[in-house]
Amino acid sequence: MRLLKELDRKDPVEVGRELHDFASELFPICRSITGNGIRQTLTRIRQRIPMEILEVPTGTRVFDWTIPKEWNIRDAYIKDATGNRLVDFKQCNLHVLNYSVPLQATMALKQLKPHLHTLPEYPDWIPYRTSYYKEDWGFCLSHNQMLALRDSDYEVCIDSTLTDGHLTYGECYLPGSLTDEVLISTHVCHPSLANDNLSGLAVATALAELLTEHDLRYSYRFLFIPGTIGAITWLARNRETVERVRHGLVLTGIGDAGGLHYKKSRRGNAEIDQAVAHVLRHHCEGSAILEFSPYGYDERQYCSPGFNLPVGCLMRSVWGTFPEYHTSADNLDFIKPHQLADSLRVCASVIDVLENNLRYQNLNPFCEPQLGKRNLYRSRGGDAIAMETNARLWVLNLSDGEHSLLDIAERSGLPFSTISQAAEVLREAGLLSLVAEDVPEKAQPNSNFDAGMSLAQSSRGPRRST
Amino acid sequence: MRLLKELDRKDPVEVGRELHDFASELFPICRSITGNGIRQTLTRIRQRIPMEILEVPTGTRVFDWTIPKEWNIRDAYIKDATGNRLVDFKQCNLHVLNYSVPLQATMALKQLKPHLHTLPEYPDWIPYRTSYYKEDWGFCLSHNQMLALRDSDYEVCIDSTLTDGHLTYGECYLPGSLTDEVLISTHVCHPSLANDNLSGLAVATALAELLTEHDLRYSYRFLFIPGTIGAITWLARNRETVERVRHGLVLTGIGDAGGLHYKKSRRGNAEIDQAVAHVLRHHCEGSAILEFSPYGYDERQYCSPGFNLPVGCLMRSVWGTFPEYHTSADNLDFIKPHQLADSLRVCASVIDVLENNLRYQNLNPFCEPQLGKRNLYRSRGGDAIAMETNARLWVLNLSDGEHSLLDIAERSGLPFSTISQAAEVLREAGLLSLVAEDVPEKAQPNSNFDAGMSLAQSSRGPRRST
Amino acid sequence: MRLLKELDRKDPVEVGRELHDFASELFPICRSITGNGIRQTLTRIRQRIPMEILEVPTGTRVFDWTIPKEWNIRDAYIKDATGNRLVDFKQCNLHVLNYSVPLQATMALKQLKPHLHTLPEYPDWIPYRTSYYKEDWGFCLSHNQMLALRDSDYEVCIDSTLTDGHLTYGECYLPGSLTDEVLISTHVCHPSLANDNLSGLAVATALAELLTEHDLRYSYRFLFIPGTIGAITWLARNRETVERVRHGLVLTGIGDAGGLHYKKSRRGNAEIDQAVAHVLRHHCEGSAILEFSPYGYDERQYCSPGFNLPVGCLMRSVWGTFPEYHTSADNLDFIKPHQLADSLRVCASVIDVLENNLRYQNLNPFCEPQLGKRNLYRSRGGDAIAMETNARLWVLNLSDGEHSLLDIAERSGLPFSTISQAAEVLREAGLLSLVAEDVPEKAQPNSNFDAGMSLAQSSRGPRRST
Repeated sequence: MRLLKELDRKDPVEVGRELHDFASELFPICRSITGNGIRQTLTRIRQRIPMEILEVPTGTRVFDWTIPKEWNIRDAYIKDATGNRLVDFKQCNLHVLNYSVPLQATMALKQLKPHLHTLPEYPDWIPYRTSYYKEDWGFCLSHNQMLALRDSDYEVCIDSTLTDGHLTYGECYLPGSLTDEVLISTHVCHPSLANDNLSGLAVATALAELLTEHDLRYSYRFLFIPGTIGAITWLARNRETVERVRHGLVLTGIGDAGGLHYKKSRRGNAEIDQAVAHVLRHHCEGSAILEFSPYGYDERQYCSPGFNLPVGCLMRSVWGTFPEYHTSADNLDFIKPHQLADSLRVCASVIDVLENNLRYQNLNPFCEPQLGKRNLYRSRGGDAIAMETNARLWVLNLSDGEHSLLDIAERSGLPFSTISQAAEVLREAGLLSLVAEDVPEKAQPNSNFDAGMSLAQSSRGPRRST
Repeated sequence: MRLLKELDRKDPVEVGRELHDFASELFPICRSITGNGIRQTLTRIRQRIPMEILEVPTGTRVFDWTIPKEWNIRDAYIKDATGNRLVDFKQCNLHVLNYSVPLQATMALKQLKPHLHTLPEYPDWIPYRTSYYKEDWGFCLSHNQMLALRDSDYEVCIDSTLTDGHLTYGECYLPGSLTDEVLISTHVCHPSLANDNLSGLAVATALAELLTEHDLRYSYRFLFIPGTIGAITWLARNRETVERVRHGLVLTGIGDAGGLHYKKSRRGNAEIDQAVAHVLRHHCEGSAILEFSPYGYDERQYCSPGFNLPVGCLMRSVWGTFPEYHTSADNLDFIKPHQLADSLRVCASVIDVLENNLRYQNLNPFCEPQLGKRNLYRSRGGDAIAMETNARLWVLNLSDGEHSLLDIAERSGLPFSTISQAAEVLREAGLLSLVAEDVPEKAQPNSNFDAGMSLAQSSRGPRRST
Repeated sequence: MRLLKELDRKDPVEVGRELHDFASELFPICRSITGNGIRQTLTRIRQRIPMEILEVPTGTRVFDWTIPKEWNIRDAYIKDATGNRLVDFKQCNLHVLNYSVPLQATMALKQLKPHLHTLPEYPDWIPYRTSYYKEDWGFCLSHNQMLALRDSDYEVCIDSTLTDGHLTYGECYLPGSLTDEVLISTHVCHPSLANDNLSGLAVATALAELLTEHDLRYSYRFLFIPGTIGAITWLARNRETVERVRHGLVLTGIGDAGGLHYKKSRRGNAEIDQAVAHVLRHHCEGSAILEFSPYGYDERQYCSPGFNLPVGCLMRSVWGTFPEYHTSADNLDFIKPHQLADSLRVCASVIDVLENNLRYQNLNPFCEPQLGKRNLYRSRGGDAIAMETNARLWVLNLSDGEHSLLDIAERSGLPFSTISQAAEVLREAGLLSLVAEDVPEKAQPNSNFDAGMSLAQSSRGPRRST
């Protein structure tokens, strides 16, 4: 399978437009870590890819955490004495402190002010703030809006509910020949913010869609989860599945105009780290590799010391380093169709590496085999050889059963695809054999959605959303 | 214990002044590798810290070496025909070649000249020269002094004695909870030279004084010894004690205006190497780490291949790289109170790292524990976290029983003290436990001065000075 | 043995002149991978060093390859209608596509043209082209020559033979105390090209000559072989000898004006890699170390994964990176006597490292031994020590039975020869002993030419040329 090749059959402009359209479709929904916003979002994803939507009741213990009450919101506003909505949730769902408890009150500006959040450095932008685990209420507004508030009484309403309910997440499992899995995780809990993380959500969905059309070596598991609590919940409920995760990526903030950044897994030298670094080095200028750190996105949980999974995080601009981060300026203009399509291409390239990163045994290890008599070498001696011939020499020289094709690509400085194609040509010529433990087992006929099923039927009793 | 915190309660100007005063008090004494100069020096140190003064007889074999005869000197001069002292030991004890045999003679300039040592490049300075192991005599003088000598007869007198006696050294043992030791070694054999090594002597004494006021995890052993032969003697007489040395520092030349230099132990990757490098990186600009080399100070002996102790050397300007080295220009002006105090602070920081460099086990290794419910995280989501919160995440993520706090500080780029405080907070919150083998044993009640005692009572029969 | 010291007794100008003279003597011969050209070349070499000339019949299988038919050529030309030789093999043997099949024909320019090879970018130079393994014929000529050809009929003659015969190669075995071998391999199949590889051939011959005059620790095997097929043939016929190869060098293109380049063995960290890197670092400015790659010279075969021998390649300008490569401009002016002599010096230095790279045990490992009493240290204390004293301290400090002298040279930054001489002085003073497994066994009295003999007598039945 060559995913990138498949993807490149499509018009890249069209690919970018579709990704951006999907983000635009989901943009208005007020998501949070629980509630109907996330349900609606997952339902839209399920229209595109096979996916289970799973629900876990409030109060369930997940490691050191507890599933919180479910939050929903219909409306919120600050009205002046004349009934004008000065701050209006219906205009922008960032206006309410996410997870605000219900409130209906009239109060003086002085009482209201401690509950108002603004960004003085960017006086036109609305910040995004949350209070998931401490009951509180508040409004986020532009600093200019706040400055315009006169010393008066205001009608303040938050028409929300915070009650026992469920935490909801989506899981898309695509079985391959191996039960070993590639985990793709993306958080879906942010309200009207485009880069963080509708970009990740859209690219992950498109990637899953692309994979459904192909025979896969690895099995793939896509998680669409609320940040932190969702990853913790999934890990708590899938202690055994976790052992199958051979590679993983958190996709987030990959639509902005910045260069790609990959934050390595805690292990630092996992195959996924090597694979993404290789792809970025050959794919594009201006990308960068970051060392692991325990602050960030859901790799925090996957890379906690008890799991220490080989999961890195692929982004464009790094969270917290650009002013639009977690503000109303992270809107649909902030993400670019071209960049979304490019991120999807990188993901496809990474999967191409993972799928094809096999180890071979040179069947003529003593001296070079005579490539010329197999028409795999230039017949005229004296001038230079082509890159593809060079790739063949590299593959033959390093195929000692130890070096993977990615190792060979790295040592030769050649792109993985060139090395991988050279290996294919040499294997067809009978010069290489696959190392035994890399030969894929036959696909397990009943493995499709097995994991999702077992979740659904487990004694922990998740309820399947319909 | 936080030694630096204790030290920083004092006025740094006062600390610097006291260090310089102690150097000034000792400056006039004519020290050598044996004799009364070193005895007087050790007696002054013993007024400040608990210390054994040990003596080993001339002729004692210490590995490949033999304790030399004891040298003492009362006077030395070169007089002209009119009886004027042209070169006078009483004006500066560098004037005599250290360890010169006794001499009383009148001789022509021509005969005298081969015994005169000068520094033509620095014509006003007197060089420091020695001849410990080859019987010789000589005078060191400024080049200008020598140029002024006319072709005449001179009365030459060296009123010294070179007879069977003892080699004298001091040993200060401060017991801690562990019998594992930190060795601090400083040479005390140089006459009126300030940086080399009254600076090291003064800082080591102050450091020992500071440590006596605290409960210690490690035991500490301070050696005040004549260079080379003193270290060899101590090692020869303490073959078993040596096994307890877990970390060590040679302190020398740490009062001049230059930046700090740390020469790594022969091992190159010992904990002391990591600790000092960490402290210097965070403590100050302009410091540098040097690779081990077998030329230098007493680390030469501690790092000989049979011992290979984890002992590095902390200096300011590196020996031999500044013109004042081993000349009369290495005087009390050459060392700065501020620099002495700063060196003491660095030593205190290093000890803080060693004392607190423990390994912990994260008791919630699967996913992050919920810091928010323990008031260890900001409750409002959406904005950045503080460095101390970040430090907590690092400690939790890497506390797998393998990484030490210093490892975590290095990988996170945060100062050790921040990481160490985060670990303390997390341990108090019940989120970490100390790795079993790092739990200090109970203090051995009788361990104080044990080593000194056993030395005193050993069959090698050292005589205790009174 | 100190080969460089021996070499440096000769006048370097004379050494360079002799090397260049030998190249000049061999330059006119039309060599190929088989045939009389290579036989004549080997015969000239055998006049200088003890060497077996071995022949392997056409059709013999050597791994994946087969010894080709033997090619010989007497004449070749392109004549115009008036009988003028426009392209004449007798003027330059590069004019014929090496291994061209016999041909006698008259043909139009149009038919001739596909068989003409030129270099449009260097219109005065004749390219060097071959067609060993695909029967073909052709002429190589300057681009200007080709442009001058009018649309006419030409008489084309290649008076060659391509018939069953032999592949010929030379093997010079110099036995040392150890049966472990150093392999020096150089290809001898190129016709009138000076740098590639008469330079390598001349230096290898001179090196072997130099070695015959000395007692050797290692045994040395020099191979003078046709490129690729020669190395494959030798390896196929010497599967057991190969196991004795401890270090190896391919010598090629070492006469041009460029800086020295060393391409590392596939292992990358073999002793030969360390040794050559050390010598180049201390020997000269402008040298460079290249990582291994599977394209190049006969190291391709020695470093094939089944053998993975510690064989690197020493060159000056790297093949393919200079325009003269594989053209008539690689002539006797392109190689410089001074550079040839310098390359020989580097080879001698490398062999000095290999021969003397022993491991010692410090017999006084606890503290420094007292060098002063053995007159191995300056007696006057206080001033700096000399490099040779410093070298002694390094050798003593690191002679723990693990570090080789080359390790010590690398870590100290001192030249190997200084370290090696220090070790000798210390061993003579009774301070070091050789590590047991480094002590050379006694020379095997009958080992001389054993390998060559056994080849000659093997069932594979090589015929010895006379």
